Amino acid sequence: MRRREFITLLGGAAAAWPLAAGAQTLHSEGALSSWNDGAAKQAIFDFVRATIDRASPNYVSPEDRIAVFDQDGTLWVEHPMYTQVVYCLERVPAVVARKPELKNVEPFKTVLSGNREAMAKLSLRDLEKILVATLTGMSVEEFNAEAKRWIENPRWNRPYTELVYQPMLEVLRYLRDNAYKTYIVTGGGQDFVRVYAETVYGIPPEQVVGTAGGTKYSYAKDGKPFLTKDAKLLLNDNNAGKPEGIYLMIGRRPYAAFGNSTGDRQMLEWTGAGAGARLKMLVLHDDATREYAYGPAQGLPDTKVGIFTPALYDEAKSKDWTVISIKNDWKRIFVFE
Amino acid sequence: MRRREFITLLGGAAAAWPLAAGAQTLHSEGALSSWNDGAAKQAIFDFVRATIDRASPNYVSPEDRIAVFDQDGTLWVEHPMYTQVVYCLERVPAVVARKPELKNVEPFKTVLSGNREAMAKLSLRDLEKILVATLTGMSVEEFNAEAKRWIENPRWNRPYTELVYQPMLEVLRYLRDNAYKTYIVTGGGQDFVRVYAETVYGIPPEQVVGTAGGTKYSYAKDGKPFLTKDAKLLLNDNNAGKPEGIYLMIGRRPYAAFGNSTGDRQMLEWTGAGAGARLKMLVLHDDATREYAYGPAQGLPDTKVGIFTPALYDEAKSKDWTVISIKNDWKRIFVFE
Repeated sequence: MRRREFITLLGGAAAAWPLAAGAQTLHSEGALSSWNDGAAKQAIFDFVRATIDRASPNYVSPEDRIAVFDQDGTLWVEHPMYTQVVYCLERVPAVVARKPELKNVEPFKTVLSGNREAMAKLSLRDLEKILVATLTGMSVEEFNAEAKRWIENPRWNRPYTELVYQPMLEVLRYLRDNAYKTYIVTGGGQDFVRVYAETVYGIPPEQVVGTAGGTKYSYAKDGKPFLTKDAKLLLNDNNAGKPEGIYLMIGRRPYAAFGNSTGDRQMLEWTGAGAGARLKMLVLHDDATREYAYGPAQGLPDTKVGIFTPALYDEAKSKDWTVISIKNDWKRIFVFE
Repeated sequence: MRRREFITLLGGAAAAWPLAAGAQTLHSEGALSSWNDGAAKQAIFDFVRATIDRASPNYVSPEDRIAVFDQDGTLWVEHPMYTQVVYCLERVPAVVARKPELKNVEPFKTVLSGNREAMAKLSLRDLEKILVATLTGMSVEEFNAEAKRWIENPRWNRPYTELVYQPMLEVLRYLRDNAYKTYIVTGGGQDFVRVYAETVYGIPPEQVVGTAGGTKYSYAKDGKPFLTKDAKLLLNDNNAGKPEGIYLMIGRRPYAAFGNSTGDRQMLEWTGAGAGARLKMLVLHDDATREYAYGPAQGLPDTKVGIFTPALYDEAKSKDWTVISIKNDWKRIFVFE
């Protein structure tokens, strides 16, 4: 069997097989088919070519090929509200059913009222209370089962897990096919995203870095040990917390980083501060017709969720980061299209 | 090419290639050659056979094959003193050279005196001060370079990196050849062990879980970002901290766990509390001639470093954990033999 056939046989599995990449195989044929030709698509192809070709001055050995992706707004939809926040709000009735004393206490009272206008006015402190009440205090197994049930049984027209960006799935696949190890680095809850990341993105739990709380080890009456999710914050995986979280959980500087908001700024800076070829990309939501349009960079509407400031846009331009325009760079947006 | 040849061609790389294991390949020929025949060696073979055979009721899919290993006393020597503690003590002169005001301050004064008897009497609080002074406050790059230099230039007869247990390297290799992902879960410093784990054990940084401090993201005068190691403890990866650390960093319950002291107890309990076949093993240092003998289980001498209590021994027996006797189970101990 010649190498060419051998590599073909391996197919997707080649991603996990360092030698395949060491052998300078470039899997680009048919890759990124939902992308329009342009600077963004070309930047991805150029980066991969430069880092997997042994003859390139920017060659990266397979074990160092780390790529990190923000989730909300980068891999899937974050509007009108982050998926996990919706989960927490919807869990409130179940929490109150177990602790009836919360029924007339704010912010639980407002959430129970179902008054969306009042809910939109809840403060960050209120939101924190809701997160603590709905995400901590239970065993890790209970949490996982509950979150899994929720994510698989949506109450809307379409499951969240289908609101994934097809072009980004293609980038994940293309990088993996070239021996890159792909990680999610999200401001969302690490435990929450781990529940579905393998199914949705092909990313295993150990490659999900997110905002993380502690757990507490203890024993049931029968002596069986269990872990309880507690409210102690170990990692706030946003802004400077992203490079800090990457260092803690991965221990290597990524070669590629993808984000879409100011919370991803430091992750891209930290990635870009390494030597050699580094790919830094930001998704700009500029397509009100096919998805959403928000910034406020480039005169786009200013929203509360997923802020892309003009300052971030300027930094991207000055540091040679690539801004992905959903409107111009993506031929197709969603997996279900 | 028939499957047999194909697998042989893959060699060590098969470990990273899930399909190889999915195809029920058992790599046992010539494995564990430094082990004497006996219950311990058999337990490892039985466990692997039971978990990789698709027809077995205890079959484990490749992505779930996680094995965790304590480091000090399990993978390499921990006597007369943990490697990292020696590193910290030896770094004291360099720290004092930069901060001369510490010269006459305890515990630095005692360490500088070189009086081993006085040093042995330092309290845990003193030791903490030394750890903070020698392991934090510098950029992650400075720390990595310094620790690497030290580990590669030993001042004794033999580098630490050669005081590795050959039988355990064979277990690591055997598990990887059967698609297990091997992790170190150590009470030692995560950053410290990551410096050499890839070279010494073939374990990449992202598969080292250890006691971890925070880092702080900031900018140099030229605008370049850097991370500084700070003294904030995020994870004390000992005792209950081990399952908590596994949940934080890996997010899956291991199928195999190896330890040697009371600090590993909860890691083995947590591993054993999962369904199906789980391998739980403890190394007992009972060979004063070829290595060290300490317990105090089984009437072995009571030492401060790497305590294996009679209670742990009883728990191991009652829960069907396997105790590895260095004296009886290991034909050869060190890599250099």
